[in-house]
Amino acid sequence: MTKKIAVLPGDGIGPEVMAEAIKVLDAAQKKFGFSLEYEWADVGGIAIDNHGHALPESTLALCEASDAILFGSVGGPKWESLPPEQQPERAALLPLRKHFDLFCNLRPAKVFPSLAAACPLRPDIVGDGFDILVVRELTSGIYFGQPKGREGSGPDEKAFDTMVYKRSEIERIARMAFEAARVRGKKVTSVDKANVLTTMVLWREVVTGVAADYPDVELGHIYVDNATMQLVRWPQQFDVLLCGNMFGDIISDEAAMLTGSMGMLASASLNADKFGLFEPAGGSAPDIAGQGVANPIAQILSAGMMLRYGLGLEEAAEAIESAVSATLEKNIMTADIAPDRDKSVGTAAMGDAIVAAL
Amino acid sequence: MTKKIAVLPGDGIGPEVMAEAIKVLDAAQKKFGFSLEYEWADVGGIAIDNHGHALPESTLALCEASDAILFGSVGGPKWESLPPEQQPERAALLPLRKHFDLFCNLRPAKVFPSLAAACPLRPDIVGDGFDILVVRELTSGIYFGQPKGREGSGPDEKAFDTMVYKRSEIERIARMAFEAARVRGKKVTSVDKANVLTTMVLWREVVTGVAADYPDVELGHIYVDNATMQLVRWPQQFDVLLCGNMFGDIISDEAAMLTGSMGMLASASLNADKFGLFEPAGGSAPDIAGQGVANPIAQILSAGMMLRYGLGLEEAAEAIESAVSATLEKNIMTADIAPDRDKSVGTAAMGDAIVAAL
Ligand SMILES: CC(C)[C@H](C(=O)O)[C@@H](O)C(=O)O
Ligand SMILES: CC(C)[C@H](C(=O)O)[C@@H](O)C(=O)O
Repeated sequence: MTKKIAVLPGDGIGPEVMAEAIKVLDAAQKKFGFSLEYEWADVGGIAIDNHGHALPESTLALCEASDAILFGSVGGPKWESLPPEQQPERAALLPLRKHFDLFCNLRPAKVFPSLAAACPLRPDIVGDGFDILVVRELTSGIYFGQPKGREGSGPDEKAFDTMVYKRSEIERIARMAFEAARVRGKKVTSVDKANVLTTMVLWREVVTGVAADYPDVELGHIYVDNATMQLVRWPQQFDVLLCGNMFGDIISDEAAMLTGSMGMLASASLNADKFGLFEPAGGSAPDIAGQGVANPIAQILSAGMMLRYGLGLEEAAEAIESAVSATLEKNIMTADIAPDRDKSVGTAAMGDAIVAAL
Repeated sequence: MTKKIAVLPGDGIGPEVMAEAIKVLDAAQKKFGFSLEYEWADVGGIAIDNHGHALPESTLALCEASDAILFGSVGGPKWESLPPEQQPERAALLPLRKHFDLFCNLRPAKVFPSLAAACPLRPDIVGDGFDILVVRELTSGIYFGQPKGREGSGPDEKAFDTMVYKRSEIERIARMAFEAARVRGKKVTSVDKANVLTTMVLWREVVTGVAADYPDVELGHIYVDNATMQLVRWPQQFDVLLCGNMFGDIISDEAAMLTGSMGMLASASLNADKFGLFEPAGGSAPDIAGQGVANPIAQILSAGMMLRYGLGLEEAAEAIESAVSATLEKNIMTADIAPDRDKSVGTAAMGDAIVAAL
């Protein structure tokens, strides 16, 4: 059976790294005997240029007709002077997440053994590395809450946003975190600010209730301010970090940077039907776009997550991850991660090496 | 002229470290010829136990009749089962901040040269150390915004908080940040999430406007998620970090932990009349309370900040800071920071050594 993939490379390094992910998916199809049909569409800044909107109707229609969305990255200096609500990130990513109800964002932050030296933390803190999965609620909280707006004028002019969480919204993301922990380190740490925010009091209450269904998983609670400290002090203490939309945004970026491998981290955003959008955690890196030097691993691992979570092709997903690790063990690395830049390879060579290792 | 100080030691290690701060203030009075009159009062958990409320009327009245508030720390396991709005932190600190309009929270995060090895970051990243001042808005934003509450029941039950900022509130904290930067590294980095939050669009607008009055200070903007990454990647890039209430809470804790000296960081919370509350950035550390091992330096440096910002006694403030540094250079350290725990000193001995160095 053929699965249809909406391929949205976007801006900056998006198209370059996407090309490598497609190479790897092609090789995986041959090896594991499944079949993908790609359809490409514009999203982000390039869609603004070509269609006048960061998320054109035609792109949305394509996504609706597909089995999964493989997303590159969007944004760049060219579109920075647009009003905030028209900018590529906000006008493309947020509506896509909302439209498909992609409430469950999975962001692994894992130290690759061959790259442990790149971690910004002291070697005695990094130890054997750490392996954290941030489970972030992605379609509610203060990024989507209503009302929001501005009113008044002069010094009293004010702007406001509303943070809202419904019990059902907290419950479904909490379940995803406990399910994930069950097949990992069996520990969920829920990040909140229940000592100040009413939303977070409900958050803690609901998460604690859900935990009763998972007696095999240990639950802890931590305030978001303390979480940012504990992450640098002793990241190994965490397995699954369960967060609302905004705290997950903040915490997952900190955790990602701590691995020292920003160009290597993938993410999955899923809805209740396991339909998903799969994208690198890093940005569009406009400063190095078009030079053939970008690290394609985050995009390739995002394709792997697509096979696992979106299409149920676990074996192929694992093979891609192993091929990435094996390639790194051979010291084939792009400039961002190579200990010796002079011996680094370009985007295409990196993709080819991973294909060869598959 | 005698200045009246409201001394609120609070819970946990609060009373122990406060005793050392008072010793140092006594020595500073003799040396610099100023005069302080202390009045002690309960706050936090001990106030709940003794008066039924974390911030008794009598304590508030004392603060009103004083020239400055020297605060220890509040909270502990004993009061954790109380409803959130009655807990020591929320019921004592937040109302105190609001009552005295202490909108300007200054949190230095600085590496002490003698303790650079304690930083959790790699030595090549820490380099010669970093010196960041977080300027956090402390009386508005989502921690105080109205309305907040819960409504409905069953799966649709929802909780909400409102993030609000007025132009005048942003303007006054921005001015504090630029004034501070002017006598430091001449650089302000404003932390926001203007790509998603309406409040933060106004924030960026107002901060940019204020910058026009400070042509000698460089202004940059950074998204809060990126800020948590940049802090671990390259902390030296920052001088003054200007933040709203919640982002400042999160960012200042991360920055504090990166110095490796949580037990050594002080903070000042000021209003427009320079009336202020001065407290350590760390917590009440109930696990080590009563053992005479807590590090009193954060409390002593908070007393120093009180002299500088609250009472205008710059010379005495600098002398206290120098005495702390000199004592550390002599390798006199409490267990939390001593490279060799067996050679560490207790709380009182640390205080005595700083008095001797003054
Ligand atoms: C681009 C932005 C709207 C987005 C977010 O904040 O969700 C990004 O930071 C992310 O984490 O995916
Ligand atoms: C205790 C809590 C209410 C407080 C805050 O969040 O402001 C604390 O974390 C702080 O940073 O002073």
